[in-house]
Amino acid sequence: MTRTIVASATREIVIGFDQPFCVIGERINPTGRKKLAAEMIEGNFDTVIKDALEQVAAGATMLDINAGVTSVNPNETEPGLLVKTLEIVQGLVDIPLAIDSSVTAAIEAGLKVAKGRPLVNSVTGEEEKLEAILPLVKKYDVPVVAISNDETGISMDPDVRFAVAKKIVERAMDHGIKPEDVVVDPLVMPIGALGDAGRQVFALLRRLREELKVNTTCGLSNISFGLPHRHGINSAFIPMVIGAGMTSAIMNPCRPQEMEAVRGANVLNGTDANCTNWIMTYRDHKPAAEGGAAASAAPAPAAGRRGGRAARAGAGVRAE
Amino acid sequence: MTRTIVASATREIVIGFDQPFCVIGERINPTGRKKLAAEMIEGNFDTVIKDALEQVAAGATMLDINAGVTSVNPNETEPGLLVKTLEIVQGLVDIPLAIDSSVTAAIEAGLKVAKGRPLVNSVTGEEEKLEAILPLVKKYDVPVVAISNDETGISMDPDVRFAVAKKIVERAMDHGIKPEDVVVDPLVMPIGALGDAGRQVFALLRRLREELKVNTTCGLSNISFGLPHRHGINSAFIPMVIGAGMTSAIMNPCRPQEMEAVRGANVLNGTDANCTNWIMTYRDHKPAAEGGAAASAAPAPAAGRRGGRAARAGAGVRAE
Repeated sequence: MTRTIVASATREIVIGFDQPFCVIGERINPTGRKKLAAEMIEGNFDTVIKDALEQVAAGATMLDINAGVTSVNPNETEPGLLVKTLEIVQGLVDIPLAIDSSVTAAIEAGLKVAKGRPLVNSVTGEEEKLEAILPLVKKYDVPVVAISNDETGISMDPDVRFAVAKKIVERAMDHGIKPEDVVVDPLVMPIGALGDAGRQVFALLRRLREELKVNTTCGLSNISFGLPHRHGINSAFIPMVIGAGMTSAIMNPCRPQEMEAVRGANVLNGTDANCTNWIMTYRDHKPAAEGGAAASAAPAPAAGRRGGRAARAGAGVRAE
Repeated sequence: MTRTIVASATREIVIGFDQPFCVIGERINPTGRKKLAAEMIEGNFDTVIKDALEQVAAGATMLDINAGVTSVNPNETEPGLLVKTLEIVQGLVDIPLAIDSSVTAAIEAGLKVAKGRPLVNSVTGEEEKLEAILPLVKKYDVPVVAISNDETGISMDPDVRFAVAKKIVERAMDHGIKPEDVVVDPLVMPIGALGDAGRQVFALLRRLREELKVNTTCGLSNISFGLPHRHGINSAFIPMVIGAGMTSAIMNPCRPQEMEAVRGANVLNGTDANCTNWIMTYRDHKPAAEGGAAASAAPAPAAGRRGGRAARAGAGVRAE
């Protein structure tokens, strides 16, 4: 069984097919958040602190940490800022972190200060990237996210994306990195632009699980880009990717609808033993809060009732 | 491609792997609804009429019609009552119906009056049942739901349930019924009682689709029996079964959360072309109505932003 181990100072988490879905909180990322970028440049980490606490409270398994505040000379500013952000967050919360940067020097600086066993986010199939990141991954003995694109961009052919992922896993092995320490991102396209985006990912996830036997992740909300009511699409996508074998995602844990989908899929995927987490979370759930119709759920199969379907199911349930 | 055709007086619907998920409205069923049973016995069809209209308005593809009001002498009362209920409903709404009864005489009476091409619900793998129902299915040239249990009850071994389904399909062929007219119900157990219930069904659905190549259905809400916030479990289950290949379900279309899961999964499964149905349904959706956190969805991949992940994904999306 593939087990990717990540850890904070004192807590170890396993990413795996038999584990609850690993929710990697995406909020600490100034990409596309101008206000956060401005704050971080000024040395103001109030939002970072708030986002760290809120995401952990909402049920994040890990936190992604990105300090890419500028596209101008990131090599100069990003290593220091990423280190500072990592130190603040790991001084505040005790869950594993992902060191997220496109700047190799920032990743190395982050690896030097991160406690436990962080996840490096990310390497791609680009030669330059492979040779920059994989030696660091080996040196610090950490797992890495492998994004399945290369110099030619993101292929629209899922077979090519699979081949890129396979190449990265093999190259990692050449560097002495075990496949279980490579977490593949099959790349999620917006379904509004590419109608086949869902089925592509589901098919890729199955191959990644069955053939490469690796753990997987994705930037989850990409799927709903451009559509109304994105949380509804995201919340349907989560159970589908979990059913197809995905074991983690970079997502916003502060969205109740998405987290409910994660918890429900864990129950159905058999990774919430005895439904304990579900029951603890929703035992006081008020149906009225759903804004749904007044009609109650269908009657359960039960002894004594009749009607073809109900009577049959009831007999079987009783016989357990 | 497997196509199960059902029809009302004027409208034909195809159940199939490349079709939107077929939602069979479950509400017109007195099993476990004492008030409805009492009304129907008295010849009061007010609730039947209300349930028919509401389910169609909520987006049901078909309506299940069950008139099993009593377990005492159903052979005497049920045929007449089922006929009356069918006539009322098909006089009111123009969508295909499922004739749901454990009483063979009631099914035959229903088949005589039903317009179009109704679905018979159901046959099982029991010898007596097979020999009673399959000749009717052949005679009236209609599709039938095949529930995968037999004289021994519902097996807890999914391989046995698959074998029962296969036997029913083969027996149907012996009667001259095509496999595409057999819609298999793999039987959904409550996940709260059987932790493996989800994975069993997903594995069975894949085999039914890939090996038997049949359409499938289930009594969907059984999965959440006994758990708090059942709609949350149901709504995670729907995308998972659709992803595993299920093509219809007997469920309550008047639950907005479940129907949102159906619509989202149709988008992701590629059966809502250009996301048209999703956009038409949710274009005016107010995020505030979700009761969620104030945080917005993650920024989409876009040109000009940086950060390893976003920049990569952006490049790919632009390159499409």
